[in-house]
Amino acid sequence: MATEIERKFLVRDDSYKKLAFAHSHIQQGYICSERGRTVRVRIRDERAYLTIKGPSLDGGLSRYEFEKEITLEEGHQLMLLCEPGLVDKTRWLVRHGGHVFEVDEFYGDNTGLVMAEVELSSIDESAELPDFIGVEVTGDRRYYNSQLRQHPYCKWGDKS
Amino acid sequence: MATEIERKFLVRDDSYKKLAFAHSHIQQGYICSERGRTVRVRIRDERAYLTIKGPSLDGGLSRYEFEKEITLEEGHQLMLLCEPGLVDKTRWLVRHGGHVFEVDEFYGDNTGLVMAEVELSSIDESAELPDFIGVEVTGDRRYYNSQLRQHPYCKWGDKS
Repeated sequence: MATEIERKFLVRDDSYKKLAFAHSHIQQGYICSERGRTVRVRIRDERAYLTIKGPSLDGGLSRYEFEKEITLEEGHQLMLLCEPGLVDKTRWLVRHGGHVFEVDEFYGDNTGLVMAEVELSSIDESAELPDFIGVEVTGDRRYYNSQLRQHPYCKWGDKS
Repeated sequence: MATEIERKFLVRDDSYKKLAFAHSHIQQGYICSERGRTVRVRIRDERAYLTIKGPSLDGGLSRYEFEKEITLEEGHQLMLLCEPGLVDKTRWLVRHGGHVFEVDEFYGDNTGLVMAEVELSSIDESAELPDFIGVEVTGDRRYYNSQLRQHPYCKWGDKS
Protein backbone atom coordinates (compact mmCIF):
# COMPACT_ATOMS: atom_id res chain seq x y z
CA MET A 1 0.00 0.00 0.00
CA ALA A 2 1.47 3.32 -1.12
CA THR A 3 1.78 6.27 1.19
CA GLU A 4 -0.08 9.24 -0.19
CA ILE A 5 1.48 12.66 -0.04
CA GLU A 6 -0.88 15.60 -0.17
CA ARG A 7 0.12 19.21 -0.66
CA LYS A 8 -2.35 21.91 0.23
CA PHE A 9 -2.49 25.52 -0.99
CA LEU A 10 -4.58 28.64 -0.70
CA VAL A 11 -6.08 29.89 -3.96
CA ARG A 12 -5.46 33.36 -5.38
CA ASP A 13 -8.37 33.91 -7.77
CA ASP A 14 -11.34 32.09 -9.21
CA SER A 15 -9.79 31.18 -12.56
CA TYR A 16 -10.01 27.53 -11.43
CA LYS A 17 -13.75 27.62 -12.14
CA LYS A 18 -13.21 28.05 -15.89
CA LEU A 19 -10.40 25.49 -15.90
CA ALA A 20 -12.35 22.80 -14.04
CA PHE A 21 -13.50 19.68 -15.92
CA ALA A 22 -15.99 18.73 -13.16
CA HIS A 23 -17.43 20.02 -9.92
CA SER A 24 -19.76 18.77 -7.25
CA HIS A 25 -21.49 20.13 -4.19
CA ILE A 26 -20.54 18.42 -0.94
CA GLN A 27 -22.14 18.70 2.48
CA GLN A 28 -20.80 16.61 5.28
CA GLY A 29 -21.06 16.17 8.99
CA TYR A 30 -20.01 13.79 11.71
CA ILE A 31 -22.30 11.76 13.94
CA CYS A 32 -19.18 10.72 15.80
CA SER A 33 -15.67 12.08 15.43
CA GLU A 34 -13.73 10.35 18.15
CA ARG A 35 -10.13 9.47 17.49
CA GLY A 36 -10.15 5.94 16.11
CA ARG A 37 -13.79 5.87 15.09
CA THR A 38 -15.58 8.38 12.95
CA VAL A 39 -19.07 8.16 11.47
CA ARG A 40 -19.50 10.59 8.58
CA VAL A 41 -22.56 11.54 6.56
CA ARG A 42 -21.88 13.06 3.17
CA ILE A 43 -24.24 14.36 0.52
CA ARG A 44 -22.52 14.80 -2.83
CA ASP A 45 -24.83 16.39 -5.37
CA GLU A 46 -27.89 14.12 -5.33
CA ARG A 47 -26.28 11.11 -3.67
CA ALA A 48 -25.68 10.38 0.00
CA TYR A 49 -23.13 8.18 1.75
CA LEU A 50 -22.48 6.90 5.24
CA THR A 51 -18.82 6.24 6.04
CA ILE A 52 -17.34 4.67 9.17
CA LYS A 53 -13.59 4.72 9.66
CA GLY A 54 -11.54 2.92 12.24
CA PRO A 55 -8.18 3.86 13.76
CA SER A 56 -5.08 4.25 11.63
CA LEU A 57 -2.98 1.09 11.74
CA ASP A 58 0.55 0.23 10.65
CA GLY A 59 1.77 3.77 11.26
CA GLY A 60 -1.01 5.34 9.24
CA LEU A 61 -0.71 3.04 6.21
CA SER A 62 -4.06 1.32 6.64
CA ARG A 63 -7.42 2.11 8.13
CA TYR A 64 -10.64 0.11 8.04
CA GLU A 65 -13.29 1.95 6.07
CA PHE A 66 -16.93 1.03 5.68
CA GLU A 67 -18.90 3.03 3.12
CA LYS A 68 -22.51 2.58 2.02
CA GLU A 69 -24.63 4.64 -0.28
CA ILE A 70 -27.84 5.63 1.48
CA THR A 71 -30.92 7.44 0.18
CA LEU A 72 -30.89 11.22 -0.06
CA GLU A 73 -33.75 11.32 2.45
CA GLU A 74 -31.69 9.24 4.92
CA GLY A 75 -28.71 11.51 4.26
CA HIS A 76 -30.72 14.62 5.15
CA GLN A 77 -32.20 12.97 8.26
CA LEU A 78 -28.79 11.77 9.49
CA MET A 79 -27.28 15.21 8.82
CA LEU A 80 -29.68 16.54 11.48
CA LEU A 81 -28.04 14.24 14.05
CA CYS A 82 -24.52 15.43 13.33
CA GLU A 83 -22.26 17.30 15.71
CA PRO A 84 -22.20 21.09 15.20
CA GLY A 85 -20.03 22.33 12.34
CA LEU A 86 -21.30 20.93 9.05
CA VAL A 87 -18.97 21.44 6.13
CA ASP A 88 -20.57 22.82 2.96
CA LYS A 89 -18.42 23.28 -0.13
CA THR A 90 -18.13 22.94 -3.89
CA ARG A 91 -15.25 20.77 -5.05
CA TRP A 92 -13.80 21.72 -8.43
CA LEU A 93 -11.45 19.37 -10.31
CA VAL A 94 -8.71 20.91 -12.45
CA ARG A 95 -6.19 18.92 -14.50
CA HIS A 96 -2.78 20.56 -14.76
CA GLY A 97 0.66 19.20 -15.67
CA GLY A 98 -0.34 15.56 -15.27
CA HIS A 99 -1.99 16.05 -11.87
CA VAL A 100 -5.56 16.65 -10.73
CA PHE A 101 -6.01 19.59 -8.38
CA GLU A 102 -9.04 19.46 -6.10
CA VAL A 103 -10.19 22.98 -5.30
CA ASP A 104 -12.63 23.34 -2.38
CA GLU A 105 -14.70 26.51 -2.23
CA PHE A 106 -16.27 26.66 1.23
CA TYR A 107 -19.62 28.14 2.30
CA GLY A 108 -21.34 28.76 5.62
CA ASP A 109 -18.96 29.49 8.49
CA ASN A 110 -16.01 28.92 6.17
CA THR A 111 -17.12 31.30 3.41
CA GLY A 112 -14.12 33.06 1.89
CA LEU A 113 -11.85 30.06 2.23
CA VAL A 114 -10.75 28.38 -1.00
CA MET A 115 -8.17 25.61 -0.80
CA ALA A 116 -6.49 23.42 -3.39
CA GLU A 117 -5.01 19.96 -2.84
CA VAL A 118 -2.89 17.79 -5.04
CA GLU A 119 -1.94 14.20 -4.36
CA LEU A 120 1.59 13.04 -5.14
CA SER A 121 2.83 9.48 -5.18
CA SER A 122 6.06 10.22 -3.31
CA ILE A 123 7.75 13.05 -1.44
CA ASP A 124 10.24 13.40 -4.31
CA GLU A 125 7.59 13.97 -6.95
CA SER A 126 7.27 17.60 -8.02
CA ALA A 127 4.08 19.19 -9.27
CA GLU A 128 3.74 21.96 -11.80
CA LEU A 129 1.44 24.50 -10.17
CA PRO A 130 -1.35 26.32 -12.01
CA ASP A 131 -1.52 30.13 -11.80
CA PHE A 132 -4.39 30.20 -9.31
CA ILE A 133 -2.27 28.46 -6.65
CA GLY A 134 -1.23 30.72 -3.78
CA VAL A 135 0.57 30.15 -0.47
CA GLU A 136 1.28 26.56 0.51
CA VAL A 137 -0.40 25.54 3.78
CA THR A 138 0.55 21.85 3.87
CA GLY A 139 0.72 20.71 7.49
CA ASP A 140 -0.97 23.84 8.87
CA ARG A 141 -3.48 22.36 11.31
CA ARG A 142 -5.95 25.24 10.95
CA TYR A 143 -6.83 23.93 7.50
CA TYR A 144 -7.58 20.37 8.57
CA ASN A 145 -11.22 19.42 8.05
CA SER A 146 -11.55 18.55 11.73
CA GLN A 147 -10.22 22.00 12.71
CA LEU A 148 -12.42 23.84 10.23
CA ARG A 149 -15.46 22.36 11.94
CA GLN A 150 -14.40 23.48 15.39
CA HIS A 151 -12.70 26.75 14.44
CA PRO A 152 -14.33 27.88 11.19
CA TYR A 153 -12.68 30.44 8.96
CA CYS A 154 -15.19 33.20 9.92
CA LYS A 155 -13.77 33.15 13.46
CA TRP A 156 -10.09 33.45 12.55
CA GLY A 157 -8.54 36.73 13.62
CA ASP A 158 -5.52 36.59 11.33
CA LYS A 159 -6.51 35.12 7.97
CA SER A 160 -3.04 35.19 6.45
CA MET B 1 -48.03 6.63 17.92
CA ALA B 2 -48.63 4.44 20.96
CA THR B 3 -46.50 4.61 24.05
CA GLU B 4 -44.93 1.28 24.83
CA ILE B 5 -44.82 0.06 28.38
CA GLU B 6 -42.17 -2.49 29.21
CA ARG B 7 -41.97 -4.51 32.40
CA LYS B 8 -38.72 -6.20 33.26
CA PHE B 9 -38.09 -9.16 35.58
CA LEU B 10 -35.35 -11.41 36.81
CA VAL B 11 -35.73 -15.08 35.96
CA ARG B 12 -35.83 -17.88 38.56
CA ASP B 13 -34.91 -21.00 36.59
CA ASP B 14 -34.21 -22.12 33.05
CA SER B 15 -37.65 -23.61 32.30
CA TYR B 16 -38.05 -20.79 29.73
CA LYS B 17 -35.71 -22.70 27.41
CA LYS B 18 -38.17 -25.57 26.98
CA LEU B 19 -41.10 -23.18 26.67
CA ALA B 20 -39.48 -20.96 24.03
CA PHE B 21 -40.82 -21.06 20.45
CA ALA B 22 -37.69 -19.32 19.07
CA HIS B 23 -34.29 -18.09 20.13
CA SER B 24 -31.43 -16.19 18.58
CA HIS B 25 -27.90 -15.25 19.48
CA ILE B 26 -27.27 -11.51 19.68
CA GLN B 27 -23.97 -9.66 19.94
CA GLN B 28 -24.02 -5.91 19.94
CA GLY B 29 -21.77 -2.96 20.53
CA TYR B 30 -21.76 0.79 20.13
CA ILE B 31 -19.47 2.82 17.88
CA CYS B 32 -21.01 5.88 19.47
CA SER B 33 -23.32 6.06 22.46
CA GLU B 34 -23.72 9.74 23.08
CA ARG B 35 -27.03 11.00 24.34
CA GLY B 36 -29.08 11.88 21.29
CA ARG B 37 -27.04 9.91 18.79
CA THR B 38 -26.13 6.27 19.01
CA VAL B 39 -24.53 4.08 16.37
CA ARG B 40 -25.09 0.39 17.11
CA VAL B 41 -23.71 -2.73 15.45
CA ARG B 42 -25.71 -5.90 16.01
CA ILE B 43 -25.08 -9.44 14.85
CA ARG B 44 -28.18 -11.61 15.22
CA ASP B 45 -27.43 -15.23 14.34
CA GLU B 46 -25.97 -14.99 10.83
CA ARG B 47 -27.18 -11.48 9.98
CA ALA B 48 -25.70 -8.11 10.84
CA TYR B 49 -27.28 -4.68 11.19
CA LEU B 50 -26.15 -1.10 11.61
CA THR B 51 -28.58 1.13 13.50
CA ILE B 52 -28.35 4.88 14.09
CA LYS B 53 -30.78 6.51 16.48
CA GLY B 54 -31.39 10.19 17.08
CA PRO B 55 -32.61 11.96 20.20
CA SER B 56 -36.00 11.18 21.71
CA LEU B 57 -38.56 13.76 20.60
CA ASP B 58 -42.08 14.65 21.70
CA GLY B 59 -41.40 13.57 25.27
CA GLY B 60 -40.03 10.19 24.22
CA LEU B 61 -42.83 9.30 21.78
CA SER B 62 -40.69 9.40 18.65
CA ARG B 63 -37.07 8.94 17.69
CA TYR B 64 -35.47 8.89 14.28
CA GLU B 65 -34.07 5.46 13.52
CA PHE B 66 -31.95 4.40 10.58
CA GLU B 67 -31.34 0.68 10.19
CA LYS B 68 -29.52 -1.15 7.40
CA GLU B 69 -28.61 -4.76 7.05
CA ILE B 70 -24.90 -5.11 6.41
CA THR B 71 -22.79 -8.17 5.60
CA LEU B 72 -21.66 -10.45 8.41
CA GLU B 73 -18.06 -9.58 7.52
CA GLU B 74 -18.81 -5.85 7.86
CA GLY B 75 -20.59 -6.58 11.13
CA HIS B 76 -17.52 -8.34 12.56
CA GLN B 77 -15.20 -5.58 11.34
CA LEU B 78 -17.37 -2.80 12.79
CA MET B 79 -17.68 -4.72 16.07
CA LEU B 80 -13.90 -4.27 16.44
CA LEU B 81 -14.36 -0.49 16.40
CA CYS B 82 -16.95 -0.47 19.18
CA GLU B 83 -16.54 1.08 22.60
CA PRO B 84 -15.60 -1.40 25.34
CA GLY B 85 -18.44 -3.50 26.74
CA LEU B 86 -19.94 -5.63 24.00
CA VAL B 87 -23.20 -7.32 24.91
CA ASP B 88 -23.44 -11.03 24.12
CA LYS B 89 -26.69 -12.86 24.83
CA THR B 90 -29.23 -15.41 23.67
CA ARG B 91 -32.75 -14.08 23.37
CA TRP B 92 -35.50 -16.64 23.97
CA LEU B 93 -39.12 -15.94 23.02
CA VAL B 94 -41.86 -17.44 25.17
CA ARG B 95 -45.59 -17.00 24.53
CA HIS B 96 -47.70 -16.91 27.69
CA GLY B 97 -51.21 -15.65 28.43
CA GLY B 98 -51.49 -13.68 25.18
CA HIS B 99 -48.08 -11.97 25.55
CA VAL B 100 -44.61 -12.71 24.26
CA PHE B 101 -41.88 -12.68 26.92
CA GLU B 102 -38.36 -11.95 25.71
CA VAL B 103 -35.86 -13.72 27.93
CA ASP B 104 -32.25 -12.56 27.62
CA GLU B 105 -29.55 -14.93 28.85
CA PHE B 106 -26.29 -12.96 29.04
CA TYR B 107 -22.73 -14.14 28.52
CA GLY B 108 -19.30 -12.59 28.93
CA ASP B 109 -19.09 -10.01 31.70
CA ASN B 110 -22.82 -10.39 32.32
CA THR B 111 -22.82 -14.19 32.69
CA GLY B 112 -25.31 -15.25 35.35
CA LEU B 113 -27.79 -12.53 34.48
CA VAL B 114 -31.08 -13.66 32.93
CA MET B 115 -33.78 -11.08 32.40
CA ALA B 116 -37.29 -11.22 30.95
CA GLU B 117 -39.22 -8.38 29.36
CA VAL B 118 -42.82 -8.10 28.33
CA GLU B 119 -44.33 -5.25 26.37
CA LEU B 120 -47.78 -3.97 27.29
CA SER B 121 -49.91 -1.60 25.28
CA SER B 122 -50.95 0.54 28.28
CA ILE B 123 -50.12 0.98 31.94
CA ASP B 124 -53.51 -0.51 32.83
CA GLU B 125 -52.92 -3.75 30.97
CA SER B 126 -52.09 -6.67 33.23
CA ALA B 127 -49.94 -9.62 32.22
CA GLU B 128 -50.24 -13.18 33.40
CA LEU B 129 -46.73 -14.17 34.48
CA PRO B 130 -45.13 -17.55 33.69
CA ASP B 131 -43.61 -19.55 36.56
CA PHE B 132 -40.01 -18.71 35.66
CA ILE B 133 -40.59 -15.00 36.32
CA GLY B 134 -38.88 -13.71 39.49
CA VAL B 135 -38.46 -10.28 41.06
CA GLU B 136 -39.63 -7.29 39.00
CA VAL B 137 -36.80 -4.84 38.18
CA THR B 138 -38.71 -2.39 35.96
CA GLY B 139 -37.08 1.03 36.24
CA ASP B 140 -33.95 -0.26 38.02
CA ARG B 141 -31.19 1.52 36.13
CA ARG B 142 -28.61 -1.21 36.77
CA TYR B 143 -30.43 -3.41 34.28
CA TYR B 144 -30.46 -0.90 31.43
CA ASN B 145 -28.43 -2.04 28.44
CA SER B 146 -26.30 1.10 28.65
CA GLN B 147 -25.52 0.41 32.32
CA LEU B 148 -24.76 -3.27 31.73
CA ARG B 149 -22.03 -2.22 29.32
CA GLN B 150 -20.38 0.14 31.78
CA HIS B 151 -21.06 -1.80 34.98
CA PRO B 152 -21.43 -5.43 33.97
CA TYR B 153 -23.08 -7.98 36.23
CA CYS B 154 -19.75 -9.65 37.12
CA LYS B 155 -18.70 -6.46 38.94
CA TRP B 156 -21.81 -6.03 41.05
CA GLY B 157 -21.21 -6.48 44.75
CA ASP B 158 -24.81 -7.06 45.74
CA LYS B 159 -26.57 -9.13 43.11
CA SER B 160 -30.00 -9.08 44.78
